[in-house]
Amino acid sequence: MLDDLKQKVLEANLALPKHHLVTFTWGNVSGVSRSDNLIVIKPSGVSYDALKKEDMVVVDFDGNTVEGNLNPSSDTPTHIVLYKKFPEIGGVVHTHAPGATSWAQAGKGIPSLGTTHADYFYGTVPCTREMTEAEINGAYELETGNVIAETFQDRDLDPNHIPGVLVHSHAPFTWGKDPNEAVHNAVVLEEIAKMGLQTYQLNPNISAMDQVLLDKHYLRKHGSKAYYGQQN
Amino acid sequence: MLDDLKQKVLEANLALPKHHLVTFTWGNVSGVSRSDNLIVIKPSGVSYDALKKEDMVVVDFDGNTVEGNLNPSSDTPTHIVLYKKFPEIGGVVHTHAPGATSWAQAGKGIPSLGTTHADYFYGTVPCTREMTEAEINGAYELETGNVIAETFQDRDLDPNHIPGVLVHSHAPFTWGKDPNEAVHNAVVLEEIAKMGLQTYQLNPNISAMDQVLLDKHYLRKHGSKAYYGQQN
Amino acid sequence: MLDDLKQKVLEANLALPKHHLVTFTWGNVSGVSRSDNLIVIKPSGVSYDALKKEDMVVVDFDGNTVEGNLNPSSDTPTHIVLYKKFPEIGGVVHTHAPGATSWAQAGKGIPSLGTTHADYFYGTVPCTREMTEAEINGAYELETGNVIAETFQDRDLDPNHIPGVLVHSHAPFTWGKDPNEAVHNAVVLEEIAKMGLQTYQLNPNISAMDQVLLDKHYLRKHGSKAYYGQQN
Amino acid sequence: MLDDLKQKVLEANLALPKHHLVTFTWGNVSGVSRSDNLIVIKPSGVSYDALKKEDMVVVDFDGNTVEGNLNPSSDTPTHIVLYKKFPEIGGVVHTHAPGATSWAQAGKGIPSLGTTHADYFYGTVPCTREMTEAEINGAYELETGNVIAETFQDRDLDPNHIPGVLVHSHAPFTWGKDPNEAVHNAVVLEEIAKMGLQTYQLNPNISAMDQVLLDKHYLRKHGSKAYYGQQN
Repeated sequence: MLDDLKQKVLEANLALPKHHLVTFTWGNVSGVSRSDNLIVIKPSGVSYDALKKEDMVVVDFDGNTVEGNLNPSSDTPTHIVLYKKFPEIGGVVHTHAPGATSWAQAGKGIPSLGTTHADYFYGTVPCTREMTEAEINGAYELETGNVIAETFQDRDLDPNHIPGVLVHSHAPFTWGKDPNEAVHNAVVLEEIAKMGLQTYQLNPNISAMDQVLLDKHYLRKHGSKAYYGQQN
Repeated sequence: MLDDLKQKVLEANLALPKHHLVTFTWGNVSGVSRSDNLIVIKPSGVSYDALKKEDMVVVDFDGNTVEGNLNPSSDTPTHIVLYKKFPEIGGVVHTHAPGATSWAQAGKGIPSLGTTHADYFYGTVPCTREMTEAEINGAYELETGNVIAETFQDRDLDPNHIPGVLVHSHAPFTWGKDPNEAVHNAVVLEEIAKMGLQTYQLNPNISAMDQVLLDKHYLRKHGSKAYYGQQN
Repeated sequence: MLDDLKQKVLEANLALPKHHLVTFTWGNVSGVSRSDNLIVIKPSGVSYDALKKEDMVVVDFDGNTVEGNLNPSSDTPTHIVLYKKFPEIGGVVHTHAPGATSWAQAGKGIPSLGTTHADYFYGTVPCTREMTEAEINGAYELETGNVIAETFQDRDLDPNHIPGVLVHSHAPFTWGKDPNEAVHNAVVLEEIAKMGLQTYQLNPNISAMDQVLLDKHYLRKHGSKAYYGQQN
Repeated sequence: MLDDLKQKVLEANLALPKHHLVTFTWGNVSGVSRSDNLIVIKPSGVSYDALKKEDMVVVDFDGNTVEGNLNPSSDTPTHIVLYKKFPEIGGVVHTHAPGATSWAQAGKGIPSLGTTHADYFYGTVPCTREMTEAEINGAYELETGNVIAETFQDRDLDPNHIPGVLVHSHAPFTWGKDPNEAVHNAVVLEEIAKMGLQTYQLNPNISAMDQVLLDKHYLRKHGSKAYYGQQN
């Protein structure tokens, strides 16, 4: 069942420790089959060393396990909300990578400070508001997804052009057209988080980069006029 | 004698350099057999490269060597006090890992700034008071254990829920139900120490995270209502 | 065609990940044949893992591909301007290495703060002005080269003695007498960028090092009176 | 000639990249034979990858090469001064390791902020004054040694108990009873340099640690009453 997607989700999960984004089991990647309305996700609390394709858990959009002997990631309801609210995405990543998590703990979004950011994120990577007591004590992981979706809706942000978010006092989520691209964006987010901190240390009065340059770099890599890489 | 425990203590010691927590011989792990009132601990000043199961030293609760040809870690009296004062713990770790040691040198506890912290430490990881001249020039390593125990007692902290401490001007100790969990907590402490510093750099006015979120995350992983991982 | 140069450019490109200067494909190295007026450069967006000598693209000084099946780096026009304006250089490197990129994002040049800097860069590594809207929306990569050349001309800097620059809100470029030396200078730039940040954190009032010491160290390694290494 | 010492000096030099203390060839180790008044030192500018025992250069106390086909390290005169002025040392190390070099660039000594420091350095690791124009333009490397010796003499410091120094605007030197111990102290210096910066970031008002604790830790590892490690 969904054998190809399981393989992709496995490989994307294994890419997290390879890119030094996770300590122990602090991360997970999922992928979605839009035609089947099914999600493949890492099992909860299983070490990356031991992870096999057969361990991947298949859940439906209500969070029911459709296939698999292990519990799915405890963050599964967050992933589901993101797939529902952001209909064009195909993969989701959650980590506690130290750079991005430090910004999340500081309660601050990461402004676009340079072209590295602009190549992937079309503006500030937002930080959500703090969650309410009712949300935390209710369906917490589902509400985590809701507060992410609210952040994009209320601030009129396009998740297809800003493929990541910081959850306040928690950690980052990123996404992409497939699990591999979601991991790619997680790596980029960690790089710009680290460089953003250093930039502020060198120049505490820095403001976001020139909008023209942001447009230029983002559109150099994305959309119909992109010319980076081997397009043809 | 205590062959299983020696193997576990050996493996836990070898995990310290693997997790980049020690330089040279700056760290040690012990484990306790509660039924025998005996402690197995790393020998003093022996390189991790060369460490073998037979090198592990067995000491009693008075610090007498019961088995082993090498001197036990010079920190052995600290470990003993912790086992005596904290009756539910089964393993103790001491390192000079740079992040946690920097907080210890700054004389500051690490406040709970996010869910990474909350998943393992149920509140601020405390920093002890400075030790007195009498304590330092007396039974120094034993008094180090006493000042740790005093810190938990005077501040009404539960060592089972805050499995670590920073000794002022010195370095961290962590513990757990066995040597492996004590190392696990040492790794976590180092991660939150590094992220805590970065969080303060991004937002010097940050205060501890929302108590409701702290409760949620800690209890998601600990106690009878835990639902993280493969519980069943 | 230009087989030796292709091999050197390949090796120089592969040295970037080896020295931890690049994430994904965020960097490129070129080399020039002055006798042929031809440049050999990395193809755009190709992973370093998969890079082969045959992938190297040969372009002329007008940016036309003379040989190769892949698109040349999108930064090729910048490289071309540098080869035209700085007639003694033989290799150019572009990266988004985190230390140097943080200075570029902060909009600040890296002053000479110690002998590590002085051994390779004879004064401040400059940061360009911000580019104008016309430059960004025009021939952007070519204009990037122009703003670098302008920086050296207007400030009366010698690119042979200051073999690198930070492009404002973007990232560093370095160069050298051949591709290998350009990479060497990229590594040095990253080291002095990281140390420069730490130096300012320790002493926010620090100013550039003594000019006499700068002269001494630079001339110890460069020019007719150099005596470092195995000169004869 | 001095075959054993050459082997020790070779191994000590190879330990520098292993401990991540050097970039390229930015470091060197020497050892002395006190009975022969001869020094064995790394050749200048030779890559660590290619270094062989036969490459080691033997020089006398006047700096004349007694054996070897390569130029000795350009820092040789500094090493010689240290061997002359500090008669009990047997090995000297110079690196541009980033943590210690950042303190040197900031022109600040590293105060004793915790037991990691106290275990090896009995007080502040001093930073020299700036060198004069006459010293820099004179016998520069010899004068570098003189300014180090002056620092210890004028401040009444004992080089046997503070086995390292920061040369202003330059980088660290360390020493020890043999080349291996000198490298050991270089590793420790880098650790305390990094932790010291972080400590100041967490607590800008921190002052040096309690003198009683400094005494305790230093004397726990050094002198006739030492009890760390396997003494007997």
